[in-house]
Amino acid sequence: MLDRLQNQIAFILEIDKMKTILRQNVPITEPHRQENDAEHSWHLAMMALLLAEHADEPVDVARVVSMVLIHDVVEIDAGDTFIYDDKAQQDQVERENKAADRLFGMLPADQASYYRALWDEFEARVTADARFARAIDRLQPVLLNVATKGLRWRVHGVTADRVLARNKVIGDSSEKLWDYLQGLVARMVSEGYLPAGPTPAE
Amino acid sequence: MLDRLQNQIAFILEIDKMKTILRQNVPITEPHRQENDAEHSWHLAMMALLLAEHADEPVDVARVVSMVLIHDVVEIDAGDTFIYDDKAQQDQVERENKAADRLFGMLPADQASYYRALWDEFEARVTADARFARAIDRLQPVLLNVATKGLRWRVHGVTADRVLARNKVIGDSSEKLWDYLQGLVARMVSEGYLPAGPTPAE
Repeated sequence: MLDRLQNQIAFILEIDKMKTILRQNVPITEPHRQENDAEHSWHLAMMALLLAEHADEPVDVARVVSMVLIHDVVEIDAGDTFIYDDKAQQDQVERENKAADRLFGMLPADQASYYRALWDEFEARVTADARFARAIDRLQPVLLNVATKGLRWRVHGVTADRVLARNKVIGDSSEKLWDYLQGLVARMVSEGYLPAGPTPAE
Repeated sequence: MLDRLQNQIAFILEIDKMKTILRQNVPITEPHRQENDAEHSWHLAMMALLLAEHADEPVDVARVVSMVLIHDVVEIDAGDTFIYDDKAQQDQVERENKAADRLFGMLPADQASYYRALWDEFEARVTADARFARAIDRLQPVLLNVATKGLRWRVHGVTADRVLARNKVIGDSSEKLWDYLQGLVARMVSEGYLPAGPTPAE
């Protein structure tokens, strides 16, 4: 039983590294630095609690919260893959599966299986819970970009057509959130903070 | 209904400030900077999921997770109060109640009441859920201090007797976690990373 607690604590200390993995977005009031995975995961958990009512199918809010809390843990080994970086996405699955084996494998066997399965479910995006978790994972960076007038979109030369293409999966879970996001993108284009596209390089 | 979503999004953007409120602990692998409330809250939510089995009384894990996710939101207005700063703790309750009124008041009425009540429950520390949430809120900084060989204890001149006095409430929720913490403190003292105390100034 003490071994069990020690394994749990070892995992809890290991995932402290989530606080050091930087993403391509910035906190709204600290736009000089990038947000990290721990901050992002906390923000998603709050969104899951508050926005679950907008999912088209019923979701188990507690499961969605657990899912978003752990969904990026694999990045401790595999790193963050930017959503608009097509090249890095190619071996992302392999890198992340290996990371999931090692990291969730630190937990006592029952918890290791449970959270590994929950992460696999998130990745597969087949269940209503996973589709909603994915929807808010896509919505959150857009909200931060809108609140900072497209700051990180500009840094990466992202255009409205790409934002819509990357985020249309939101509509697989919530028509309301997808409509809302389209409204935000249209507003950013009309206010001049986001070029309509297409990206010149494509 | 759109107003409802807009109020929820306004709250979600407002609480982004949690990423900018610094605490008195440091991430283990980035000891040159302090962790913030968003990172801390995510870490607690993970601890709630993984350690709930060690609570002496049954707890509702999903409620504890929600509780720890929102427990520090009031610090957006009231600031962080260091656990070993007795003076700042004097008007902490008043400052935090006012903050709770404003912040949770941004949500649609039903969610505002629910999360305000959940925060009040956390503060009152009467229910099994709230006592367990408090226990892991106390345990987490100790884990970070142990992993960094007492770094922040040293900065603040904290001694073992104070660590034990401040954290004995952990035993109100979980004898196992309280035993475990006492073991950690004893080890830190024996390894020379934490003076036994009492604090000379007292």
